[in-house]
Amino acid sequence: MSTLLPATGVIRDRAHHFPLRVYYEDTDLSGVVYHANYLRYCERARSDFMLLLGLDHRAAFEAGQGYFAVAEASIKYLRPAKLDDALVIISQFTELRTVSWCVHQRVMCDGQELAYVDILAAFLDMHGRPTRQPAGWTESYKTILKEAP
Amino acid sequence: MSTLLPATGVIRDRAHHFPLRVYYEDTDLSGVVYHANYLRYCERARSDFMLLLGLDHRAAFEAGQGYFAVAEASIKYLRPAKLDDALVIISQFTELRTVSWCVHQRVMCDGQELAYVDILAAFLDMHGRPTRQPAGWTESYKTILKEAP
Amino acid sequence: MSTLLPATGVIRDRAHHFPLRVYYEDTDLSGVVYHANYLRYCERARSDFMLLLGLDHRAAFEAGQGYFAVAEASIKYLRPAKLDDALVIISQFTELRTVSWCVHQRVMCDGQELAYVDILAAFLDMHGRPTRQPAGWTESYKTILKEAP
Amino acid sequence: MSTLLPATGVIRDRAHHFPLRVYYEDTDLSGVVYHANYLRYCERARSDFMLLLGLDHRAAFEAGQGYFAVAEASIKYLRPAKLDDALVIISQFTELRTVSWCVHQRVMCDGQELAYVDILAAFLDMHGRPTRQPAGWTESYKTILKEAP
Repeated sequence: MSTLLPATGVIRDRAHHFPLRVYYEDTDLSGVVYHANYLRYCERARSDFMLLLGLDHRAAFEAGQGYFAVAEASIKYLRPAKLDDALVIISQFTELRTVSWCVHQRVMCDGQELAYVDILAAFLDMHGRPTRQPAGWTESYKTILKEAP
Repeated sequence: MSTLLPATGVIRDRAHHFPLRVYYEDTDLSGVVYHANYLRYCERARSDFMLLLGLDHRAAFEAGQGYFAVAEASIKYLRPAKLDDALVIISQFTELRTVSWCVHQRVMCDGQELAYVDILAAFLDMHGRPTRQPAGWTESYKTILKEAP
Repeated sequence: MSTLLPATGVIRDRAHHFPLRVYYEDTDLSGVVYHANYLRYCERARSDFMLLLGLDHRAAFEAGQGYFAVAEASIKYLRPAKLDDALVIISQFTELRTVSWCVHQRVMCDGQELAYVDILAAFLDMHGRPTRQPAGWTESYKTILKEAP
Repeated sequence: MSTLLPATGVIRDRAHHFPLRVYYEDTDLSGVVYHANYLRYCERARSDFMLLLGLDHRAAFEAGQGYFAVAEASIKYLRPAKLDDALVIISQFTELRTVSWCVHQRVMCDGQELAYVDILAAFLDMHGRPTRQPAGWTESYKTILKEAP
């Protein structure tokens, strides 16, 4: 029954929209979400984005093909998120290569942007060396790559 | 649109069923979910359980009425949870007093029990002293209290 | 220079005393340490306890011998820990078998007990099955096993 | 006794050197430290840096003066950190204003740079609005501000 599956979000106009809620674990004593947790949120969104695209990163890891590692991350914090807030992470790929990709992610609440994140991630083999992503993955991304202006 | 709201789970036969997915952030180098994270999962489930019951713990906190603190927790680990697993937390209140309650929570995956957790939580005032829960809350719980055998 | 090494604590009268500080990341909006984080604190203490005993769990994992998994955990919360508190975790093994052990851990601040934790952990092989700990490990534990009363 | 106090690091040539160890909780299934945890590490280092400078952020918060919030963060990952690694975070203030500051932080292991982080943080009042830092704080920073080239 669908209400007993975790939300994976939807893809619209090449962007992935991913809902999540803020819990006690996410806040700190200043009463708002601890700054590092935006990176966790965005990684959840990217994981479910890939799931919807049909890329199985767990199978790739278990088969010894490799895994993604974040190479660069930057975050701009605009407004705080609070307990029980229903957030939406909007993710859009901005660059795509065989080994790596860039994604721009916006953390939204009630139509307002709370923060945005830019991630550069690379696919690594089991020894930690950059390597091509598994066959077929880059094709799948192309369907959702942001068009050049 | 509902697909853009976080899953809050459903209440069936007095028990709350809450879906969540396992992400990279949850795992450790042994390849499975880090043991402390089951407490985070269960707290997410309890939060959404309360939300469905109509108890607004954020409003209570912001109004200076108080907040819940865990007084006792115990966990039994049976099977590991892995990346991308779709888990369901089944929560059932087992005891209810004006200041505190007990809840039994089972972490399920594909119909198998991975772990179970027992929590005793108390409502504290803003100085950290146990106090009665806000008016109406204990009434709300009664609808979902497990019946005496 | 010793001030640039992380504190590993000391062993006294068979118990390991491990210092740590509370940071923003550890607190939640109620202003005190989030309940699940006590399990993280205790795991740090157990890791450094093993380090001092000469057990190298990273080497054992990398050699494919196995790793520890927590099988049971229980926590009693007595008083809250706050930002910047200098805590000491006192850990004492209470039972020792070839596959598993039990440890009792107390979280102290200024001589007061804030919480105590009981952990049962088992050594697992790389397939997740309980197995004997590496040769020599159980001998090392014996030096710090709590004496029978 | 000093061995039972958490390490706070040392200040040398205007830079703060802060030691910490990598634990199971910090790693993910790829076997190395999860990318978001570098922000937690750097925040620990900044907290202890302020402690050594004599700035009491807990007292400022409890007195209702305000607290720091991260406004921008960027991270470059160069090499992975692993279980039990003894890291050193080297932090250096690069800009100082009455409301905000910038700090450059390097995560080191055995003399190698694993990652570097740039943080812009602002002091906020209890309503979340930028405000001047408490009297005396900016004076304290000046002693460790990196000299203009």
